[in-house]
Amino acid sequence: MSIQPAPAYEPPYVMAVFTSVRTRDDTGYPETNARMNEIVRANPGLLGYESARTPGGLGITVAYFRDHDSLAEWRENLEHQAAMKHGRAHWYESYTLHVATVERSHGFVRDNG
Amino acid sequence: MSIQPAPAYEPPYVMAVFTSVRTRDDTGYPETNARMNEIVRANPGLLGYESARTPGGLGITVAYFRDHDSLAEWRENLEHQAAMKHGRAHWYESYTLHVATVERSHGFVRDNG
Repeated sequence: MSIQPAPAYEPPYVMAVFTSVRTRDDTGYPETNARMNEIVRANPGLLGYESARTPGGLGITVAYFRDHDSLAEWRENLEHQAAMKHGRAHWYESYTLHVATVERSHGFVRDNG
Repeated sequence: MSIQPAPAYEPPYVMAVFTSVRTRDDTGYPETNARMNEIVRANPGLLGYESARTPGGLGITVAYFRDHDSLAEWRENLEHQAAMKHGRAHWYESYTLHVATVERSHGFVRDNG
């Protein structure tokens, strides 16, 4: 199975874009990151979750939710809140969160047939 | 000057998220990519533009605009349209575009003082 971008869901849906630059402190980060993946993927309102990080540079994570209530559940999750607090203390040099409602989307998939 | 994520702008603003997986065809891609950067950065309604690509994997580009008219100007730019057409023919295995209005944003910057 090759990598695919998350598809164009049916609008309206909610999109949270988290951009970040990390510190050099990696202690506990991979484990927490894996656990956060588990938690967000268990959210019944999650449509998709994807991220990219240029080595040594900027990371961008996008979470797609059916509605604002589903995003609120993720935001208010206690393990997630503890992870964000630990992240501000240790793992992130800086980050920005943008929460938006998607009004339009479309996708393209190459026809290799 | 170290890398920084785009800051939290004052909502509402428009965010276009373009996620993609590339083909192996790189012919002309870096030059066109650089030219597209030039064009979008000349857009007076552009607030910010950032991207990350995991080597061999998913690329995520986020463009932040003051309003939908500014985004429309970018979408309708003829060089941009030609580049997208060429991209579908040669450079992209698949891509998705999500266009949204940002309702809430916040940022964090570490205090290294």
